[in-house]
Amino acid sequence: MTVTISAAINSDRLWQRHMDMAEIGATQAGGVHRLALTDEDIEAHKLLMQWASTRGFSVELDAIGNMFIRRQGRDPSLAPVASGSHTDTQPKGGRFDGIFGVLAAFEALEAIDDAGIKTERPIEVIAWNNEEGPRFVPACMGSAAYAGVEPLDAMLASQDPDGISMGECVEALKAAMPEAGVRRLGAPLHSFVEAHIEQGVELEANGNTIGIVTGMQGYRRFRVTVTGEDAHSGTTPRSRRRDSFVAATDMAVALRALLWDNEDIVRFTIGRFEVFPCGISVVPGRVEFTIDLRHPVAETLHTLGDRISDICAAHAGPCEVKVREFINSDPMAFPDSMVSQIETAANRRGFAHQRIYSAASHDARHISTLCPAGMIFIPCWRGISHNEAERAEPEDIAAAAQIIADLFVELGNA
Amino acid sequence: MTVTISAAINSDRLWQRHMDMAEIGATQAGGVHRLALTDEDIEAHKLLMQWASTRGFSVELDAIGNMFIRRQGRDPSLAPVASGSHTDTQPKGGRFDGIFGVLAAFEALEAIDDAGIKTERPIEVIAWNNEEGPRFVPACMGSAAYAGVEPLDAMLASQDPDGISMGECVEALKAAMPEAGVRRLGAPLHSFVEAHIEQGVELEANGNTIGIVTGMQGYRRFRVTVTGEDAHSGTTPRSRRRDSFVAATDMAVALRALLWDNEDIVRFTIGRFEVFPCGISVVPGRVEFTIDLRHPVAETLHTLGDRISDICAAHAGPCEVKVREFINSDPMAFPDSMVSQIETAANRRGFAHQRIYSAASHDARHISTLCPAGMIFIPCWRGISHNEAERAEPEDIAAAAQIIADLFVELGNA
Repeated sequence: MTVTISAAINSDRLWQRHMDMAEIGATQAGGVHRLALTDEDIEAHKLLMQWASTRGFSVELDAIGNMFIRRQGRDPSLAPVASGSHTDTQPKGGRFDGIFGVLAAFEALEAIDDAGIKTERPIEVIAWNNEEGPRFVPACMGSAAYAGVEPLDAMLASQDPDGISMGECVEALKAAMPEAGVRRLGAPLHSFVEAHIEQGVELEANGNTIGIVTGMQGYRRFRVTVTGEDAHSGTTPRSRRRDSFVAATDMAVALRALLWDNEDIVRFTIGRFEVFPCGISVVPGRVEFTIDLRHPVAETLHTLGDRISDICAAHAGPCEVKVREFINSDPMAFPDSMVSQIETAANRRGFAHQRIYSAASHDARHISTLCPAGMIFIPCWRGISHNEAERAEPEDIAAAAQIIADLFVELGNA
Repeated sequence: MTVTISAAINSDRLWQRHMDMAEIGATQAGGVHRLALTDEDIEAHKLLMQWASTRGFSVELDAIGNMFIRRQGRDPSLAPVASGSHTDTQPKGGRFDGIFGVLAAFEALEAIDDAGIKTERPIEVIAWNNEEGPRFVPACMGSAAYAGVEPLDAMLASQDPDGISMGECVEALKAAMPEAGVRRLGAPLHSFVEAHIEQGVELEANGNTIGIVTGMQGYRRFRVTVTGEDAHSGTTPRSRRRDSFVAATDMAVALRALLWDNEDIVRFTIGRFEVFPCGISVVPGRVEFTIDLRHPVAETLHTLGDRISDICAAHAGPCEVKVREFINSDPMAFPDSMVSQIETAANRRGFAHQRIYSAASHDARHISTLCPAGMIFIPCWRGISHNEAERAEPEDIAAAAQIIADLFVELGNA
């Protein structure tokens, strides 16, 4: 198959849009701090809306705050071909994670518009709400609710640490974008492609521009609460302490013994760890921490994850411990048809490419339960991500946008 | 020696004052959250001022925010006899730590006033500012500045986590109490007695009402900063991580091996432990924690404390670590003369008593460099302190106040 009609993307415009977006929530160290549906994230949505309006693209919001930018097709009743990612970042995150996938898709849409190409199907750019999850649990909330993987009510009830609910935030987003139409959750998509930085070093090491993602490793997440007793650090002897910090560190060390494999395939992270009351002279009465566990093999993920609760209990000492699992997601694979189609597109443009397995999880996981989905990775400097120092190159970004533009035209007429 | 004139304290009034004070910063769990010079702590000072004014006692504030309530003596030029403690609490602390020493001294002053007793020397109740230290470092700041142990400028420059300085807070305290006179830092005191809950179990175990404190163990405090690199928890293999949480827990475990003695005399506490950026899916790039180390033997305290920095460095793994010591205070002893005088006073009233060594540090440590000082402990339920569940009994509180009243009369005429 060959592309008979094609649209050339504008790499300068695409890079400039990245730089403009990076100003919203910019940190001093050159990163971006733009948690889901904060004022900054809503501002990012408004900027997208403004760019879309200038082009005459229509915009819709759904009940969980996902944003859809549509270029109409010849037959508006057909399910749209879609691409996108997310606008939110981790606390002090980078300038590319998420937003690159949105802007690359938007550039593809503009390029097609510039070229005056008509497609049978509508084409859409999607910004999934709350992909990162540090403010509202769970991560990938918008795509999960859209795909029906998570129930809407529970997602809207999710509260941030200040007690603000996702529901309130979605209302604030709608109020900030009164021109936006209403999208029904789960409305059919013809296909979905997400572009994202790799967040690993494989493409960089192999000198490839494009990674065609074959699947994603599974992950399980746990919240652990260790309860002891607040006590005076000067007067309370060790034998009378119920020190939750001591117990929690014992658990952390014991979990390492279970989860650190010689092959370095297991991903085990304690990323949140909070001590209460957190006073210099107070033996901590409570510790709360999270466990993020990932593995590409479902059986290994089951076996290892199922032992976490017992190991925590065995190392609680004089404290009490509660372990609650709040995410349990098996490894997944994208359909061969999408992998091949993206591969063919990369070949046609002559981009150095490879198949790649995703260690991170992305919105495309949930959307793949709804329609054929796939992902495109580009290199990311030293694999550094979830970090202000995150970097991607303009030419790699442009390559991904070009593939999306080609796929939009091809799939939009399929 | 016998007390020829004496004033009987009013235990109901004294208990009621505790209950009134406990309302300022009251927590739902029955404790008190009243960090130094917050609105709540300033309100506590104003309530003391109001009670003092009703009695016609004069009030002064010094440059670091210590408060002095004076009942004038026949010779106002003589150095005053003083007693007191502090009004501030730990985060979610109890209803007795600190405030009991202030209120017991105030009750003694009222009882003497009720009895119409004249003393040669002025008698003073003192509320030392910022004893606890969780908001402003160092702890025992007010007494340290008054005694010249710490320089005033550096103390006023100390900032809380929101960047508010102690200097600003002292100005706010002065503004809230415009009637207060000015006290010169370091103005002579004839003697100082501090009453405090034991915060240990010795008095309770021995069935004694009064502990006469012979001295205090020494303590050293350290702030440790571990720096690694933020990274994505799904994509970054263990071999490429610079996980500051892993390094910090290794340090914590190694420090235990050094500091946990079989005799259970060393007090070693990691009470603050903060992880950054603290995201579920982010390998932590930075951890900051504190070490509180205490021991009654100066040489042991020196030897153990001096090894902390090396142990942290040896367990930093791929991270960097900085260890900064910010308090180094040797064990101290109160003068025999004061210990004997308090013992005699307890004997006269027939209170079951014992000598006791203080595991905690108190303002009397610094004031003992300025004048003869001593301390009175009373039992505290199960030794629980720095905890909302902290409890002391009305009759024990009254016993301490009675001893202070007797000492006020005795020393006030010495």
